[in-house]
Amino acid sequence: MIADTHSHDPRLPRHPLDDDKLREECGIFGVIGAADAASFVALGLHALQHRGQEAGGIVVHDPEHGFNSARRLGYVRDNFTSPDLMETLPGPLGIGHVRYSTTGNKGHTAIRDVQPFFGEFAMGGAALAHNGNITNAEALRKELIERGAIFQSSSDSECIIHLMARSLQRNIPDRMEDALRRVEGAFSVVAMTGTQLIGVRDALGVRPLVLGKVADGYALSSETCALDIIGAEFVREIEPGEMVVITEKGVESRFPFRRQNSRFCIFEHVYFSRPDSIIGGRSVYETRRQIGVELAREAPVEADLVCPVPDSGTPAAIGYSQESGIPYAMGIIRNQYMGRTFIEPTEQIRNMGVRLKLNVNRALIAGKRVILVDDSVVRGTTSRKIKEMILDAGAAEVHFRIASPPTAWPCFYGVDTPQREKLLAATMSEEEMRDHLAVNSLKFISLDGLYRAAGAAEGRNDACPQYCDACFSGEYPVEPSDMIERGFELKAAE
Amino acid sequence: MIADTHSHDPRLPRHPLDDDKLREECGIFGVIGAADAASFVALGLHALQHRGQEAGGIVVHDPEHGFNSARRLGYVRDNFTSPDLMETLPGPLGIGHVRYSTTGNKGHTAIRDVQPFFGEFAMGGAALAHNGNITNAEALRKELIERGAIFQSSSDSECIIHLMARSLQRNIPDRMEDALRRVEGAFSVVAMTGTQLIGVRDALGVRPLVLGKVADGYALSSETCALDIIGAEFVREIEPGEMVVITEKGVESRFPFRRQNSRFCIFEHVYFSRPDSIIGGRSVYETRRQIGVELAREAPVEADLVCPVPDSGTPAAIGYSQESGIPYAMGIIRNQYMGRTFIEPTEQIRNMGVRLKLNVNRALIAGKRVILVDDSVVRGTTSRKIKEMILDAGAAEVHFRIASPPTAWPCFYGVDTPQREKLLAATMSEEEMRDHLAVNSLKFISLDGLYRAAGAAEGRNDACPQYCDACFSGEYPVEPSDMIERGFELKAAE
Amino acid sequence: MIADTHSHDPRLPRHPLDDDKLREECGIFGVIGAADAASFVALGLHALQHRGQEAGGIVVHDPEHGFNSARRLGYVRDNFTSPDLMETLPGPLGIGHVRYSTTGNKGHTAIRDVQPFFGEFAMGGAALAHNGNITNAEALRKELIERGAIFQSSSDSECIIHLMARSLQRNIPDRMEDALRRVEGAFSVVAMTGTQLIGVRDALGVRPLVLGKVADGYALSSETCALDIIGAEFVREIEPGEMVVITEKGVESRFPFRRQNSRFCIFEHVYFSRPDSIIGGRSVYETRRQIGVELAREAPVEADLVCPVPDSGTPAAIGYSQESGIPYAMGIIRNQYMGRTFIEPTEQIRNMGVRLKLNVNRALIAGKRVILVDDSVVRGTTSRKIKEMILDAGAAEVHFRIASPPTAWPCFYGVDTPQREKLLAATMSEEEMRDHLAVNSLKFISLDGLYRAAGAAEGRNDACPQYCDACFSGEYPVEPSDMIERGFELKAAE
Amino acid sequence: MIADTHSHDPRLPRHPLDDDKLREECGIFGVIGAADAASFVALGLHALQHRGQEAGGIVVHDPEHGFNSARRLGYVRDNFTSPDLMETLPGPLGIGHVRYSTTGNKGHTAIRDVQPFFGEFAMGGAALAHNGNITNAEALRKELIERGAIFQSSSDSECIIHLMARSLQRNIPDRMEDALRRVEGAFSVVAMTGTQLIGVRDALGVRPLVLGKVADGYALSSETCALDIIGAEFVREIEPGEMVVITEKGVESRFPFRRQNSRFCIFEHVYFSRPDSIIGGRSVYETRRQIGVELAREAPVEADLVCPVPDSGTPAAIGYSQESGIPYAMGIIRNQYMGRTFIEPTEQIRNMGVRLKLNVNRALIAGKRVILVDDSVVRGTTSRKIKEMILDAGAAEVHFRIASPPTAWPCFYGVDTPQREKLLAATMSEEEMRDHLAVNSLKFISLDGLYRAAGAAEGRNDACPQYCDACFSGEYPVEPSDMIERGFELKAAE
Repeated sequence: MIADTHSHDPRLPRHPLDDDKLREECGIFGVIGAADAASFVALGLHALQHRGQEAGGIVVHDPEHGFNSARRLGYVRDNFTSPDLMETLPGPLGIGHVRYSTTGNKGHTAIRDVQPFFGEFAMGGAALAHNGNITNAEALRKELIERGAIFQSSSDSECIIHLMARSLQRNIPDRMEDALRRVEGAFSVVAMTGTQLIGVRDALGVRPLVLGKVADGYALSSETCALDIIGAEFVREIEPGEMVVITEKGVESRFPFRRQNSRFCIFEHVYFSRPDSIIGGRSVYETRRQIGVELAREAPVEADLVCPVPDSGTPAAIGYSQESGIPYAMGIIRNQYMGRTFIEPTEQIRNMGVRLKLNVNRALIAGKRVILVDDSVVRGTTSRKIKEMILDAGAAEVHFRIASPPTAWPCFYGVDTPQREKLLAATMSEEEMRDHLAVNSLKFISLDGLYRAAGAAEGRNDACPQYCDACFSGEYPVEPSDMIERGFELKAAE
Repeated sequence: MIADTHSHDPRLPRHPLDDDKLREECGIFGVIGAADAASFVALGLHALQHRGQEAGGIVVHDPEHGFNSARRLGYVRDNFTSPDLMETLPGPLGIGHVRYSTTGNKGHTAIRDVQPFFGEFAMGGAALAHNGNITNAEALRKELIERGAIFQSSSDSECIIHLMARSLQRNIPDRMEDALRRVEGAFSVVAMTGTQLIGVRDALGVRPLVLGKVADGYALSSETCALDIIGAEFVREIEPGEMVVITEKGVESRFPFRRQNSRFCIFEHVYFSRPDSIIGGRSVYETRRQIGVELAREAPVEADLVCPVPDSGTPAAIGYSQESGIPYAMGIIRNQYMGRTFIEPTEQIRNMGVRLKLNVNRALIAGKRVILVDDSVVRGTTSRKIKEMILDAGAAEVHFRIASPPTAWPCFYGVDTPQREKLLAATMSEEEMRDHLAVNSLKFISLDGLYRAAGAAEGRNDACPQYCDACFSGEYPVEPSDMIERGFELKAAE
Repeated sequence: MIADTHSHDPRLPRHPLDDDKLREECGIFGVIGAADAASFVALGLHALQHRGQEAGGIVVHDPEHGFNSARRLGYVRDNFTSPDLMETLPGPLGIGHVRYSTTGNKGHTAIRDVQPFFGEFAMGGAALAHNGNITNAEALRKELIERGAIFQSSSDSECIIHLMARSLQRNIPDRMEDALRRVEGAFSVVAMTGTQLIGVRDALGVRPLVLGKVADGYALSSETCALDIIGAEFVREIEPGEMVVITEKGVESRFPFRRQNSRFCIFEHVYFSRPDSIIGGRSVYETRRQIGVELAREAPVEADLVCPVPDSGTPAAIGYSQESGIPYAMGIIRNQYMGRTFIEPTEQIRNMGVRLKLNVNRALIAGKRVILVDDSVVRGTTSRKIKEMILDAGAAEVHFRIASPPTAWPCFYGVDTPQREKLLAATMSEEEMRDHLAVNSLKFISLDGLYRAAGAAEGRNDACPQYCDACFSGEYPVEPSDMIERGFELKAAE
Repeated sequence: MIADTHSHDPRLPRHPLDDDKLREECGIFGVIGAADAASFVALGLHALQHRGQEAGGIVVHDPEHGFNSARRLGYVRDNFTSPDLMETLPGPLGIGHVRYSTTGNKGHTAIRDVQPFFGEFAMGGAALAHNGNITNAEALRKELIERGAIFQSSSDSECIIHLMARSLQRNIPDRMEDALRRVEGAFSVVAMTGTQLIGVRDALGVRPLVLGKVADGYALSSETCALDIIGAEFVREIEPGEMVVITEKGVESRFPFRRQNSRFCIFEHVYFSRPDSIIGGRSVYETRRQIGVELAREAPVEADLVCPVPDSGTPAAIGYSQESGIPYAMGIIRNQYMGRTFIEPTEQIRNMGVRLKLNVNRALIAGKRVILVDDSVVRGTTSRKIKEMILDAGAAEVHFRIASPPTAWPCFYGVDTPQREKLLAATMSEEEMRDHLAVNSLKFISLDGLYRAAGAAEGRNDACPQYCDACFSGEYPVEPSDMIERGFELKAAE
């Protein structure tokens, strides 16, 4: 591939603390029948910014001006708030995408990798935005190049456009069906032609996609929180394996893929989705609070305070406090103005890392036995630093409680995970991790406890799990064929 | 005055929701004896960013390069993280300033109004950064112009430099004493010469200033949280009326002003200071939590949930929940990516205001009796919108509990307040406000309750109040002479 | 097509005065065997900037980093002088392109239309930059889309890449031959693989391309002036219909197209090429001076001064003066700092147009009979304004002498020309033009005179013209099939 | 002084070739009675850009909005063409300034050094822009600081504002008289109050200033070419020692200084002024052409071609050719797109210097005896490189003819000159310079010849010279007292 250099500031929010999280790689949004689709899409993407902070793009269409698009590195609020730019995006129909990063380009997002992607076909144009990951993208890419396709990006999603270009079908939804049947992996897609808004979820329904009603039209969104921001009414989730084709006449539903049991990503409940979104009829916030309740039951400990690691540990910490009766307190304060990483030019202040972002409430913590509730442990680097801050502030004991099971396997379905060797839980037992972090105790919620908190009253159905939990269990519902080709070893059968 | 046009994006974070807060106008920081003072100052200012978001400036000195400065509009993290810029700021001695806004220029901050200010005197240069407000600045300015001073900014703080230039004293600290004795109002100042770091608080000690020990030197800061970020040890608060002159030999203390009873700003406890700062030996977080406890005692109500208005209402909401036994919940979620205001080009999405920043956790709120805890009510515009969001989400009842007494008077001591007519509490009684906001109940903490939470066990000493509480009581400890000249009417004696 | 919005300042150098010129649309440059190819390419493009001012791009390759590229709107000197950017372009092999504009996007150049274009084929990558115009591009594009090609730009040059992708040949030069054999029109191409630098001219040799020797390698350039800037030695012109494939082993020459009589663009002599370039062994400056000599012979007139319309009329004015004996003078001075167009917000200064760029030397002109020598008349709008300026300054008579025949036909071979109706000479005789411009006399050089000045001692060979002169004669050596499809009418056979 | 760091790109047009010229440091312009003064001022400054390329500033006033200003680094065309900016500069009265550089800040222009300067006095505000140099500025500055002035810039011109602030006069023109009577050196000043446009020239009239009539008002400008661009009619030059105060009632003239014989800068004729300006009733172009005529008489030589060093040598080369009968030719071509300096990262292309800007017309020069006409020799570095380029291109002989006498003394009246030791003519005789440059011959015009060309038919009046020619003669009409204090040695009396 060719690497496109760009003048973008490389100091993106790559803070050590942020690096120690799994990251959802994309958020998608589309609207039809709005007076000014681009404004709605921009607002929707703003509400989905937590799903991808590095870049965003919008494509719109109206009969007079045809297709127009804008793709930018940076936050939605910094780009898609300019009247000069928004005026160039007229029309009642549009889709958009926010993304975290790209695999190809040394971790930097090049403009040409920013979705939505656009293709012009004999029957007209179509644009497409994708959340997820195509697990056979490398094989598809090789095959398409041999057949004469010219790839313009390093994104796996571009395969879909080239597959569509080679379909023999005579309209775009049918071509998209053709293309998506060749694709393996997890995906939610929003797409558009000049007259149609299209939404699709893969047969397992790994990644989310919801339908809303707005004004005289409809919206598709990764999460319900983006419907709220534009005042849209939540209608329903797109079903696993469903394609909806929305025109001004209404919503047409198709099921182009072989039906399977659904395997929604359980990490959406734990961390990815916003706490004010609703998944499967449940408040994400409430599920997380319930994880805290389960944790308090599974892993009680005597202590003086329950403190969240802000901000993602907050709901579980509230639940833990309520179930245990131990007072909840903001022992760690987050700097609201964090963004780019500070330069640390002198030895004096090098390695201050976490302190730029978090500060301990010393007067509160001193002499106390503290339970710290965090959402997950990935590399463990941040957990260690936070523990040190708490002890420096004079805490008597530090107990970690983690609102997810040990993260021991990488995700290949659209989530940015370190290589397996870098995952603390891939190489250590719970006890080893406790010793490594040097805390008084360390407990993860059990997989069953997590399933219960997420609404599966009986816990996990091991024969036919209700969720995709590959990052915890190593059971991959879709074989990651490109990765196996590269040498990744699946979990040995037990 | 001349208005300097500038290319700065005027879309600063003027969100309706933010506009409905009082705002601290400045944070100040200085360091001496650091290997690289500018880095420390930048970090300190970053930790003080909540005290002023619109601009920041740093002045440093070293023997080889003399004085150097950089002043920028925007966040510290976006400007003072560039190695190119930081390299231009060498030396072991430096001061800095973050500011919110300026009075003169239609609400926009011009670069030339960004502090620190610098003056060259016969005995050498000095730089100065000021937190507070000079209540006789207009009179001083008129007098100085008549005597030939050329003002370069619209800032009241520039008066101090011109007064120093006209002093007959032979060294800079003595000139500063001369100058500050002419100044009325509230101020904390950090200043520097080529060899001295100087800190001063006015005789009432309205605005904060603390001393820390770092490496081989010292730091001065508006709040302790900025000492934490650079790993400095908190030494003590600068006393009201004290001037400290710090050199490599140590800290010299002087008391140049007539001694008075101190009147620290009580709103620093309520809202301005960061919750992880320590004031008067007390955790700000803990004081706020205690306000919630007091509120629960003074104004109990039957309800299902206690929800903070994020983020400033959170500690008081925790306290209210703990004292009342009503569960604490995150009923309102704040968008982490808020910054500049979104453009709202179409009628469809105009007036969506608060929704861009906050979203209600619908699944949690529906059918519930909700207590909302907020830090203050200024104009009341935001309270009203939040109430509507909560009711739209299906809440059964909405009860407001406010962690400060009614804000009925403007502050003239360095806080941005609307004109008196715009303050809801200036024109309405508590009942009228409740009806105006159309909530089931509305209660403010009493002034005595607030004093108790802030550590005055017996409540307010009306004969000699322990704090400046002019914004609540209308009792101004320093007469606002410029404002009276302009027609402001003091509270009638009772 | 989709239109990509971009934040580029639309105030490009679209001055009325510039709009009244034909414009070469591209310059191309490539180098192999340089220590730092990107620097050489940047310098070469800088020397070719007159061939395309709106955008530039560079692609380089080295074995370690593979292909890298940067494409930017604006001048070479403003983009490709940044060390940060140049560091991202390592390697000994590179090509580059400057362009004037694009046909598709309302006259604005979008980044994705900036060449070089890149394609990844089964046998590796290749990049390509093109000067000229493909006259059957629309038909090719339609055919390619039907076969599944996804176009990313609105540029006709992208067809070449897609044709290459579909070739059955097993190496890139052979695929390029396949592709170029499908292409009609005029083109000079520089291209590169990871190890080869390739240059091609169409069979008629309409657009220029020269070969130079530099250090341990070779360079290809639109003009010799770009060889001079990097200190390369001019070797020879690439021949019409020739393809050279240059590797570290040397220069291999092929002739893939059917041989024809060459038809080099005569307007390169008149205006496009830089006066310090050498074409066909002749100094461009000297050819232009000779045009002035021929003009003085063909169209003498009594006058006091010969003044060029700066800067392009200067050499011909010198020749006219030398042949006629009438003194040469700088009657019109050009502002050196012209660039973007000034905003003209008030009626007072609207329509000042030409005056922003040119000023008459009043003290020199007053009372004089002035011969103005210009290179060409396109719309005639500028000629008219200049005449008015000269008369306002008090000239007694104004005589226009034009260094090219009447421009009566559009160019379809890579030159930006107005529609035929807008060409003054398409609708008026020489006398009508003189009356329209209201000058004392107006004379164009004859086509034969131009041919003589360009070195054809006997003048034009009408049976088999030595140059492409379609803009003057209406005789198109390649049929413009897309344009005919759109309704363009060729000159009726006489 | 404090050094203000700024984010300005330091790669300003400091090309080796430009560095080998003397540079006028400022251009000034003002207008009263225009509908939109800022537009006129911007256009005027654009026409004066050759007098100062590094920064520009505009101050305007109207009754409704008071004073507004904008000061920017960079070209006028790049800053003062933005509608957003120009809208902030309303009103019928304005002044502006372009500047080359500042002495204080290591050669970089800081924003705070950009004029016009503004001061607020008891009777209202005033702004002032200054072309020239105050030769006792250091002494004045010291005195003013001792009296309490706070300087904000490193510019000598700021002294005038502080002197005005201390005047006891009751209106601004009278205060300006007071201030300028304390000032030594050369100056032309344009200034404004809310209702007056003021122009002043020092008693010797060293720097130019002209008056024009425009629409219903008046304009003041450094040169007439800036009157032409706004369509203003040239009225007259402001006289040496004259102050004009222009209001809507008309032009009032005063002569506040002791009358002396005028000493206009003769280098304005040689190089600084634009060739289309008129000085003392003579076309600058014609004076320069006449210098060439004089040179041909004083220093004839047999040769084949007369070539200018572009662009400043052009008029003299034309004159030399016409007087000598040797053909004029463009032997050296200037790149129109030069601007910032190219980065030269590799050894291969380091030191290519002049070639980036100039290219020799090889086909023309080869085998010829060439006379090169340049305006001046300062350091001689460029002359040497040009000679090498010409010889590399195969010239048989190279003869330099210089349109000014040897530049042997620095200017202290507002022109940027190297230190005396760096001036080639300060240390070498004409023969030594010829040998140093290694050319076949080198001749400078005589001082008498220059005076004759500039209109003094009898040549220089040594008893009472008609011009300031200190740079050639070492006779300084105003004693440079600050420089003498620093150790500069005047020419010994003969």
